[in-house]
Amino acid sequence: MREPDVTPCAADEVKRWDDSADVVVAGFGAAGAAAAFSAAESGAQVLVAERAGGPGGAAALAEGIVYLGGGTPIQTACGFDDSLDDMFRYMMAACGPDPDEAKIARYCDESLGHFDWLVARGLSFDPTFCAETSMAPTGTEGLVYSGGEDAYPFNEIARPAPRGHLAKTKRATGWLLMQHLATAASEAGAAASTDTRVDRLVLDDGRVVGVQAQRFGETVSLRARRGVVLAAGGFIFNDDMLRQHCPPLARGTFKVGTEGDDGRAIRMAQAIGASVRNMYAGEVSLPITPPRTLIHGILVNGRGQRFINEDTYMGRVGQSALYEQDGEAYLVIDEASYEVNWMGLTASWVCETAAQLETEIGLPAGSLQSTLDLYNDHAARGEDPIFHKGAPWVRPLVPPIGAIDLRIGPAPYAPFTLGGLETSVEGAVLDLAGAAIPGLYAAGRTTAGVCSFGYASGLSIGDSTIFGRLAGVSAAATVDG
Amino acid sequence: MREPDVTPCAADEVKRWDDSADVVVAGFGAAGAAAAFSAAESGAQVLVAERAGGPGGAAALAEGIVYLGGGTPIQTACGFDDSLDDMFRYMMAACGPDPDEAKIARYCDESLGHFDWLVARGLSFDPTFCAETSMAPTGTEGLVYSGGEDAYPFNEIARPAPRGHLAKTKRATGWLLMQHLATAASEAGAAASTDTRVDRLVLDDGRVVGVQAQRFGETVSLRARRGVVLAAGGFIFNDDMLRQHCPPLARGTFKVGTEGDDGRAIRMAQAIGASVRNMYAGEVSLPITPPRTLIHGILVNGRGQRFINEDTYMGRVGQSALYEQDGEAYLVIDEASYEVNWMGLTASWVCETAAQLETEIGLPAGSLQSTLDLYNDHAARGEDPIFHKGAPWVRPLVPPIGAIDLRIGPAPYAPFTLGGLETSVEGAVLDLAGAAIPGLYAAGRTTAGVCSFGYASGLSIGDSTIFGRLAGVSAAATVDG
Repeated sequence: MREPDVTPCAADEVKRWDDSADVVVAGFGAAGAAAAFSAAESGAQVLVAERAGGPGGAAALAEGIVYLGGGTPIQTACGFDDSLDDMFRYMMAACGPDPDEAKIARYCDESLGHFDWLVARGLSFDPTFCAETSMAPTGTEGLVYSGGEDAYPFNEIARPAPRGHLAKTKRATGWLLMQHLATAASEAGAAASTDTRVDRLVLDDGRVVGVQAQRFGETVSLRARRGVVLAAGGFIFNDDMLRQHCPPLARGTFKVGTEGDDGRAIRMAQAIGASVRNMYAGEVSLPITPPRTLIHGILVNGRGQRFINEDTYMGRVGQSALYEQDGEAYLVIDEASYEVNWMGLTASWVCETAAQLETEIGLPAGSLQSTLDLYNDHAARGEDPIFHKGAPWVRPLVPPIGAIDLRIGPAPYAPFTLGGLETSVEGAVLDLAGAAIPGLYAAGRTTAGVCSFGYASGLSIGDSTIFGRLAGVSAAATVDG
Repeated sequence: MREPDVTPCAADEVKRWDDSADVVVAGFGAAGAAAAFSAAESGAQVLVAERAGGPGGAAALAEGIVYLGGGTPIQTACGFDDSLDDMFRYMMAACGPDPDEAKIARYCDESLGHFDWLVARGLSFDPTFCAETSMAPTGTEGLVYSGGEDAYPFNEIARPAPRGHLAKTKRATGWLLMQHLATAASEAGAAASTDTRVDRLVLDDGRVVGVQAQRFGETVSLRARRGVVLAAGGFIFNDDMLRQHCPPLARGTFKVGTEGDDGRAIRMAQAIGASVRNMYAGEVSLPITPPRTLIHGILVNGRGQRFINEDTYMGRVGQSALYEQDGEAYLVIDEASYEVNWMGLTASWVCETAAQLETEIGLPAGSLQSTLDLYNDHAARGEDPIFHKGAPWVRPLVPPIGAIDLRIGPAPYAPFTLGGLETSVEGAVLDLAGAAIPGLYAAGRTTAGVCSFGYASGLSIGDSTIFGRLAGVSAAATVDG
């Protein structure tokens, strides 16, 4: 028997409603806070049930990048001329295969208004651009490339622009973001019940009318007159679900999220016939840069073969390394390109020749030498016709050469799940026939969002807050059950 | 709205039961026939509902290989000394990642008895071994290697033995197998209702007590006093489900199955809270051999890189080509290794040098030349240290060289789905909490069987018939509802 039992509870089995509201939101992370705020702003009485001791969720632990574009004030101030068309084309290419066009289109439509909404919630953004990295900057710069927009293949699909927006703070911006969103939800009138872990949905003739939750060891029943919004995270901390749906992610060594990301909300909804999608998909960060100078090196797999352009988004590198290269990768560098990276990863091997290096690493004889010869031959002409790394990063690697060990173990593989409940653009949870389940809404990593498989930093918080707001509005507008 | 609507029907909404039985089986393919036979043999009154005009299912269209080992009379007669331990070790390696150990162990335990069961159903097997190919032989040989047991890495994990068993016939053995199994089910007393497409489950207080089906345009209700067995195939003919769960398979050009493989049975069960697993998994045949001489060549992807040992099971080649190489592959051969293959695939290009060939194909400059140089360098010593192709197939490729176009389009990619309902070893369909759903059983490609992702030919019919039998026994043994 798998715990917890997520079997739904019939309304006539509820002896007493311990609390009630128009809208009950399960989870007080980015999606839950956005849903609670919007539902409350729409005039609904809102109760947020959060299993932890306070708001935050995975977003509070995150870098806090929000993916927005189409010409935000920060993009414009930094001299980038972005368009919603370019943002849409990028996302359709980067979020696939088989991206959700309707959600991506709506995401782009909401983008500029959502920036204003974040500012109105009290967040401020420095109009400065961080050129060094595709990860979070160490200063207070407000804008970064966060998804490989300026690298192959995306630079050929859409005009590149940085769209990773970071609120100004000396601390992690995810934490700051959640402070503001949780405060905004409270000020809009949403009540919160912490240490309250939602476990089951309560059904009345096919409609969701509330939830049952554990609060300090007791089962409480929370009535939702209009709707329940599930915003309780993904399932990266549920090994059983990982093995069921995406075995590669179970091998990740630095799982991204909170222990609340146990997939409970997804399973609760599945138990009443909700549909899921993209359950195999996961983002896997393999943090190599900064510094960017390292991408003068070449990434090879356990066969000594290159497998990706090194200047792409590190989340794409991690996905390929974990899903397709069996968690075995090495960054081969020379003296001119080597620096200790921000996580302290250093070269595990240094040799006079590629032949020696491949022997030291244990790669098949001749494999790395062959790869390096071909790379250097092209690089001498400033070209990388095979993987299309950008010209600024292409130059021959000169012995002595070394390698940073990027296998699972020596290097951190940081995954989280992208699959989840199938929802309408407006946040209704869909059943197996594609129909909305009455009274049930969802947002954030509990759902399959804009990312079918591909990812860019900032898309989870963007997805959570944009579609969280829509789900909150939808739930608030539902006729009382 | 997705058709069909698989929303369950409450028993009190059924005005009249049009037919009734102890056990209702949905689907008269290999799994359904095995379940029907065993339920009837166990003393249950059995009704099989089949949407087509007669029994058959995907099995009747298949080569008809049954994966069995551990020392069957045919293996022994052919001089192979197999053991159940070797079979188990092979399956644990080949069916993963994250193979279902309990199901694989049971599969092996049943293997020898299941061979006898097939013989008792009237099938006969020639005690001759077909050495040429890992696919179905063209003669009446009864035994073939069907899963790369004799190639890397499996030849290092378990002692190789051929385990693909083929019943003796001049026609496709899948068709013959289904003739015998359907006849056996009928002779055991199972009744069949053809042109009867099951669409919904009927529920009474959480227990499945029957199904609703379409029969000649009318809705009929079929009472199942003990249980319903879902054995209605996979979902390779449901594009919507492929996009939801396994986008790469949607690109397959020669989908393997019948139009009944639309995932309906999986969705019906999900609609009442059944759990699914491995929904991303699919077998993809890319039929290159026979003749085996072709595997003297090397397989390269769109970057001119090798990606697999060419002597492995062609189903593994197809999986890698479709899932990991973006459906782009070429078989590079020289004159000594070239023959037109059994499907008529011929060399699309022939050139004097690798450099010319890569230009003709459109591969990046230098890529194929580099790959070929490295391969030939190793091959001159009879070695393939990178992909471990077996020594008999390793020799330098000598110009002129050519390539067979194995991209999607020029070459047939033949996929089917491996994911489905989560079931106990005995065939009970499990809910989200891991508990058996009362009255509901399943087998065959409607379920997630022994193959989590990897595959060998014969495992679908093996899985369907072994676990179909178990599901039939379980349903027959259920106390009347």
